[in-house]
Amino acid sequence: MLLPELRKEVLEANLELVRRGLVLYTFGNASGISRKDGLVVIKPSGVPYGKMTPEHLVVTDLEGKTVEGTLRPSSDLPTHVLLYKVFPKIGGVVHTHSEYATAWAQARKPIPAFGTTHADYFHGPVPVTESMTKEEIASEYEKNTGNAIARVFEHIDYSAVPAVLVANHAPFVWGPDVGIAAHNAVVLEAVARMAYLTLSINEKAESIGGDLHDKHYLRKHGSSAYYGQK
Amino acid sequence: MLLPELRKEVLEANLELVRRGLVLYTFGNASGISRKDGLVVIKPSGVPYGKMTPEHLVVTDLEGKTVEGTLRPSSDLPTHVLLYKVFPKIGGVVHTHSEYATAWAQARKPIPAFGTTHADYFHGPVPVTESMTKEEIASEYEKNTGNAIARVFEHIDYSAVPAVLVANHAPFVWGPDVGIAAHNAVVLEAVARMAYLTLSINEKAESIGGDLHDKHYLRKHGSSAYYGQK
Amino acid sequence: MLLPELRKEVLEANLELVRRGLVLYTFGNASGISRKDGLVVIKPSGVPYGKMTPEHLVVTDLEGKTVEGTLRPSSDLPTHVLLYKVFPKIGGVVHTHSEYATAWAQARKPIPAFGTTHADYFHGPVPVTESMTKEEIASEYEKNTGNAIARVFEHIDYSAVPAVLVANHAPFVWGPDVGIAAHNAVVLEAVARMAYLTLSINEKAESIGGDLHDKHYLRKHGSSAYYGQK
Amino acid sequence: MLLPELRKEVLEANLELVRRGLVLYTFGNASGISRKDGLVVIKPSGVPYGKMTPEHLVVTDLEGKTVEGTLRPSSDLPTHVLLYKVFPKIGGVVHTHSEYATAWAQARKPIPAFGTTHADYFHGPVPVTESMTKEEIASEYEKNTGNAIARVFEHIDYSAVPAVLVANHAPFVWGPDVGIAAHNAVVLEAVARMAYLTLSINEKAESIGGDLHDKHYLRKHGSSAYYGQK
Repeated sequence: MLLPELRKEVLEANLELVRRGLVLYTFGNASGISRKDGLVVIKPSGVPYGKMTPEHLVVTDLEGKTVEGTLRPSSDLPTHVLLYKVFPKIGGVVHTHSEYATAWAQARKPIPAFGTTHADYFHGPVPVTESMTKEEIASEYEKNTGNAIARVFEHIDYSAVPAVLVANHAPFVWGPDVGIAAHNAVVLEAVARMAYLTLSINEKAESIGGDLHDKHYLRKHGSSAYYGQK
Repeated sequence: MLLPELRKEVLEANLELVRRGLVLYTFGNASGISRKDGLVVIKPSGVPYGKMTPEHLVVTDLEGKTVEGTLRPSSDLPTHVLLYKVFPKIGGVVHTHSEYATAWAQARKPIPAFGTTHADYFHGPVPVTESMTKEEIASEYEKNTGNAIARVFEHIDYSAVPAVLVANHAPFVWGPDVGIAAHNAVVLEAVARMAYLTLSINEKAESIGGDLHDKHYLRKHGSSAYYGQK
Repeated sequence: MLLPELRKEVLEANLELVRRGLVLYTFGNASGISRKDGLVVIKPSGVPYGKMTPEHLVVTDLEGKTVEGTLRPSSDLPTHVLLYKVFPKIGGVVHTHSEYATAWAQARKPIPAFGTTHADYFHGPVPVTESMTKEEIASEYEKNTGNAIARVFEHIDYSAVPAVLVANHAPFVWGPDVGIAAHNAVVLEAVARMAYLTLSINEKAESIGGDLHDKHYLRKHGSSAYYGQK
Repeated sequence: MLLPELRKEVLEANLELVRRGLVLYTFGNASGISRKDGLVVIKPSGVPYGKMTPEHLVVTDLEGKTVEGTLRPSSDLPTHVLLYKVFPKIGGVVHTHSEYATAWAQARKPIPAFGTTHADYFHGPVPVTESMTKEEIASEYEKNTGNAIARVFEHIDYSAVPAVLVANHAPFVWGPDVGIAAHNAVVLEAVARMAYLTLSINEKAESIGGDLHDKHYLRKHGSSAYYGQK
């Protein structure tokens, strides 16, 4: 069996999404990539999480062609594959319909950076994609979802803002590996919820200042980080 | 004992509603029909879920007359029976007072299709019934609840929009079998919640475009579906 | 030990409030009365629920004087006792700070009857007390809380609307016995939550019509009731 | 090992925050002080709660220098230490990003005292700090967070209002010992949630009157308290 360790990590990331209440039934999927082998491991489509084992996961190449596995891969595979191509430093991708992040996506509003919880993870607002055209929807829809995401990040650093809201759909989230991608998805949902509450309390709430935003982001990221044990 | 398999499915659907937090105490009921036998299996009225076994369920004919069972059937039985008559392709009916769907019913607003989660299950907004007249309430109230639902679907395909909000009451949901009806009820509640959040974030949020709505609905339904394992 | 059966019922009602998420730490209390003996059984003050046994409960007379028990009774005892005096048909009283009902009490707004869930239990809006005077607060505060409740029900049938919101405080709920009082408190919280959501979706939402309200209340209560197994 | 009892109390307080849903992943920390020894026991930085034992905790002096322990202390240690210096009667400090309290902090609004739940614990609104300057953020940020808190309490009694919202960040909470500090943090979150709901129901909701506020606060605190068993 190919990539047994990556299969375990991808399965564990999928289960973390369930434990944290981010997915209802089968509405979510996580994948990981082995850059060395050019192979992606992804959740199968529509299989209940409770019965999933590493063997059920599907291995594909970077064209989305199945290399190992008898089940059909997640129907969102073409989006994952496209993100691996355009974001060369990422190692994992997660897609959920978590409720608050999805509500922001449906409202077509970026999630403002209202506080340090946001700033610890996302170095700027979490952006929303533009609408897709009729043609983009009709043909290769999932791949074009990835293209819509890629366009948003032409002017944003995808490493510093590892999430996006697909308009009228739901979030995609990534990270250096699939475990971090799932962790980021959980934090995104918490941040989306608190931003919702913040605006409800004060419709004129202002984003966190740049100095404080940088401070918190850089406490956790980069060469001067001093959060955690290393 | 009649219809032992259907009894199990109906019991399991009732329990799924409890597990998913859709029912408080005994505020909900699920039924299934054997079209071949013309018999309906339904939850008894006011019996705690924790102690329910397949034997407790009540079997009735399509006039709502008990054929097997010593307990009184759910008081909403006449609504279920009427829906089985007017919606010939359905195999299960579920009624809950789940909180967000009920709030929309109380607000007397249809649930707009704000995103792909909605579009995956409901091919259009989830409609609300009209008020019932004094006479409809006074006599055969539960049957007339079914009639009020039927009137809404004179111009909507009940297979493509398998749910309705009864005004000032709560949702009724259906499907090809009772398990799918319960699944649809769980998704309806999630969709109702996300629509509520969407409007709170952006009171001018717009419904999903027709192209994207069709795309998602048809990814899961009909002859071109490509979601899941078949 | 006096009243062993009533002690069990009162303990069970207190635990039901915890299981249903209505109380945080020790913020709640339930009591029951033996009308025959003129004795009240109530939760002790500030004792964690997890360690409570029937022996910890306190038995008092209708003046609030302890008849059996070494612990101090709930500080809200004088409110309970006053309600037993002015509402001669009730057998149990429950007080919680459950979040949605408390928010309505803090907002000093009665909970409108927006739907049949409400109508099944409360035959009209759930009212709010008036403010208490400086003198009423300074002396015999808890007894005067009961008096403020009693004044609200001079023109409302306490059997048909078994709950009240004490202004800037929280709900008191009652019933024919303490188990039903706890059940009513749980339903009140669900109704308070759905009313909140209803107004958020439609600020012009209207109360349920009188015909439908009566129909649902009388399906469950009185001589023509046909809900449940009797 | 130094301070074994205090280590246990601090660990237990950290775990209470998790059990009550106040912390996501490692977003929170609790500490306790031994005034006699001039030593602080605090959670290590970024270590999962599930694996934490008393040995993992870090002992520091009042300058924040590690006296015992191999792990790095919570990055918020300088804030804790400063609070111990300026608030001489406190024995424990807790910091969380609990969702409702954090939303008020992000909205930069004090939490009004809308009811008796609030009044039982906080003898006035829960205040918000002012913004920190660019210089305060750039150098000794965590210590300056403590200074910003201290400035708020120049005119408020920190014993009577044992919590603060740090602007665009989250709450800090304290108490006579770390267990009470954690308890206060849990109540703060409930109070923050109910205040949010109160304003959503009635945007003109008014704070509780002074007489009632005093009554409830003094039922639980000070020489005339009569709540609980002592």
